Amino acid sequence: MAKILITSGPTRQYIDPVRFLSNASSGRMGAALASAALEAGHDVTIISGPVEIAYPSQAVVKKVVTTEEMLQAAQDYFPSCDGVIGVAAPCDYRPSEVFPHKISKTGQKWHLSLEETPDIIATLGSTKRPRQWVVGFALETEDPRLRALRKMITKKCDLLVLNGPTAIDSLENQVEILHPSGKTLAIFQGNKMELGKKIFRMIEQNILESPDFV
Amino acid sequence: MAKILITSGPTRQYIDPVRFLSNASSGRMGAALASAALEAGHDVTIISGPVEIAYPSQAVVKKVVTTEEMLQAAQDYFPSCDGVIGVAAPCDYRPSEVFPHKISKTGQKWHLSLEETPDIIATLGSTKRPRQWVVGFALETEDPRLRALRKMITKKCDLLVLNGPTAIDSLENQVEILHPSGKTLAIFQGNKMELGKKIFRMIEQNILESPDFV
Repeated sequence: MAKILITSGPTRQYIDPVRFLSNASSGRMGAALASAALEAGHDVTIISGPVEIAYPSQAVVKKVVTTEEMLQAAQDYFPSCDGVIGVAAPCDYRPSEVFPHKISKTGQKWHLSLEETPDIIATLGSTKRPRQWVVGFALETEDPRLRALRKMITKKCDLLVLNGPTAIDSLENQVEILHPSGKTLAIFQGNKMELGKKIFRMIEQNILESPDFV
Repeated sequence: MAKILITSGPTRQYIDPVRFLSNASSGRMGAALASAALEAGHDVTIISGPVEIAYPSQAVVKKVVTTEEMLQAAQDYFPSCDGVIGVAAPCDYRPSEVFPHKISKTGQKWHLSLEETPDIIATLGSTKRPRQWVVGFALETEDPRLRALRKMITKKCDLLVLNGPTAIDSLENQVEILHPSGKTLAIFQGNKMELGKKIFRMIEQNILESPDFV
């Protein structure tokens, strides 16, 4: 039995008290992976951004809003876990300045300066212990496999799940499971609940049941 | 019996295929007003941005994503309606350039140029027929009453409902009903279902039962 951390859903980066940057991640893939892991008898903690879906009741769920909060929670929980599945879509840019009052319209253009938020999976990957593991997700619209392989290496992931932009806020998904060797281990397509089981089975075969991680 | 159009929920303005600007409007206040109007025997059409809540089944619901789509739908439906309640929180800025591919992180700042989206309620207010009516909502964090009165006049609203930023994505709300004369007609506080009834009763008393609109 492993202790598994799952990051799930989007995060939001507020510009003023009302407006924010985000994405349409629904948390469905995170919920599906949590169900698969629980069914296989593992302990699951989910750190989730704002989503409407219900996570399995046997999982511990920690709700956050921003990428910074998700990173903090991930750093709090990761040391006591065997590994993390980073299926969240954290908002990766934040405004350089956050306005305390709602910006009123003036008829003029608004020049917004954005800076990158910290990378949660890269941070966990760079601090992982021997035998502790990290599974990343990537969503790419251009040169997807090349960019995904680069992400897997720079973020020190032990497996990477590549999906396309149609995955977001959808019931269906198509994913490609990439190994750090560069090999594509599998391509799966279907509804997210079924995909959750198949992806988790790949994590079991390549990580949980591998002598490198036991 | 009146034919009432309700705009509800947030809209999204995409920056690239994944990231968007939006706000946390839940559509709850729109659903509450729709229920109150249906209960009073009126016909209700709702134009809604992406929300998870369920609208009353007796309402016609048209789903949209962007502010431009909400405006187009509002202009399509408004001519055949007696009035509109604009409780939506349309995203009022959009990127001047929308990127066809997901922008990759570079470690550098990202300077995003935003321009205003068209104002839906102001557009409907400027084209309304005699006896056709417009009820606006405003959410202000600074000089709320002054800014709300200015909005009511420039957008040619027949009533304006002022709420604070705590209204967003909450079950509770506090609202102030403002009349174009500058008078505060009422202040209500409570859960959104009850507020929907009270606000709709004010619309009946001041518009639907007023000789100016019959």
